[in-house]
Amino acid sequence: MPEQGFYNLFIMSQSNQISKAVISRLPRYYRYLRELIEAGTERISSEELSRLMKATASQIRQDLNHFGGFGQQGYGYNVKSLYNEIGKILGVEEVHDLIVVGAGNLGRAIVRYKGFGAHGFHFCALFDIDETLCGKTINGVRVYHTDELESFVLNNNVDIVALTIPTDGALKVSKKLYELGIRYFWNFAHTDLELPGDAIVKNVHLLDSLLELSFTVSRSKIKEEE
Amino acid sequence: MPEQGFYNLFIMSQSNQISKAVISRLPRYYRYLRELIEAGTERISSEELSRLMKATASQIRQDLNHFGGFGQQGYGYNVKSLYNEIGKILGVEEVHDLIVVGAGNLGRAIVRYKGFGAHGFHFCALFDIDETLCGKTINGVRVYHTDELESFVLNNNVDIVALTIPTDGALKVSKKLYELGIRYFWNFAHTDLELPGDAIVKNVHLLDSLLELSFTVSRSKIKEEE
Repeated sequence: MPEQGFYNLFIMSQSNQISKAVISRLPRYYRYLRELIEAGTERISSEELSRLMKATASQIRQDLNHFGGFGQQGYGYNVKSLYNEIGKILGVEEVHDLIVVGAGNLGRAIVRYKGFGAHGFHFCALFDIDETLCGKTINGVRVYHTDELESFVLNNNVDIVALTIPTDGALKVSKKLYELGIRYFWNFAHTDLELPGDAIVKNVHLLDSLLELSFTVSRSKIKEEE
Repeated sequence: MPEQGFYNLFIMSQSNQISKAVISRLPRYYRYLRELIEAGTERISSEELSRLMKATASQIRQDLNHFGGFGQQGYGYNVKSLYNEIGKILGVEEVHDLIVVGAGNLGRAIVRYKGFGAHGFHFCALFDIDETLCGKTINGVRVYHTDELESFVLNNNVDIVALTIPTDGALKVSKKLYELGIRYFWNFAHTDLELPGDAIVKNVHLLDSLLELSFTVSRSKIKEEE
């Protein structure tokens, strides 16, 4: 059982700090490997993978070595098993229960997004202060009033909370949820959450991302005018 | 006119490469400064800003020095003028014309998102292959059939294209748009676009972001079981 062996190796190395940068690259490896599987590729060398991913082959080898190293010299990586192992590391074989606070456009778009379910993400409930939305279901997920958030979290397993509400609400709700024991936040609000150090927050700051683009657009316009 | 002076300084330094890392931090400065303005703060030292932003004061000073440096020793930064200058650098005083390819949940959520308009982003049109959507307006923005994309781009100013369609479509459409002269892409498709080096792509990979979270959730569960 080489997979099991590898997985144990990974678990044993938990105490070693894996850098945030490596973790942030794993989903991208996972994505490229999936594309390779769909294209029918069975083996790939780190050199080929590096051309594809626009990274250096040595970085790829180094990253994958972090997790035991699946490659064989002159033989390359087995795409399928590498994909499965990285999936395991990322936790896609487990079910993660999510709730979404904010049943506006973004919250609804997230619950309807097709790609999440196949990777172990299960949306349990939406919450909103808008009473006209309460009781409705969106893609099979029921909307509850935010007043019911506390009792829901106390009575159900909730691994991750997505916040798709404005800044003030997100700051308040995240503090409350932290007190209730929630530690994993997927934050779409246009603010950084103010939570103790053991809370793990992954931000999706849409405006920040768009501003980075407009910065380069503006810069190119200045250049054209020079 | 110190602002003008500063801006010229910035333009003059265009030829110097500003690191991607600095650019990616600017929207965050901008966001924090806005929060400070809203809280009525007029001046702030790099030390206070560093506590707030959980960055080192020296990084903050270094970053802001890139753009001329607005701070005065023992006096701090003027919040409002720093905010305005960074906004200018980010291009929020100009209008950026966007189109959104994909009028599904995510595309609609983006067009309805309230925060973009105030920062110079103007949505001109949505495009979709679904004929039942064509002719409708979403938040005042009209949906056209994707067949009309080429003529729209040729006849209208389009600075940025947001792609909220699945992988295959995104790869095809982005290549076509590149040929038509589009260089700035805000990509929500679950793939990296395959475009020449002068295309600027800002990715929002929602599944990647969620997988980073589930990685840490899974890891903590393993720890608890040990």
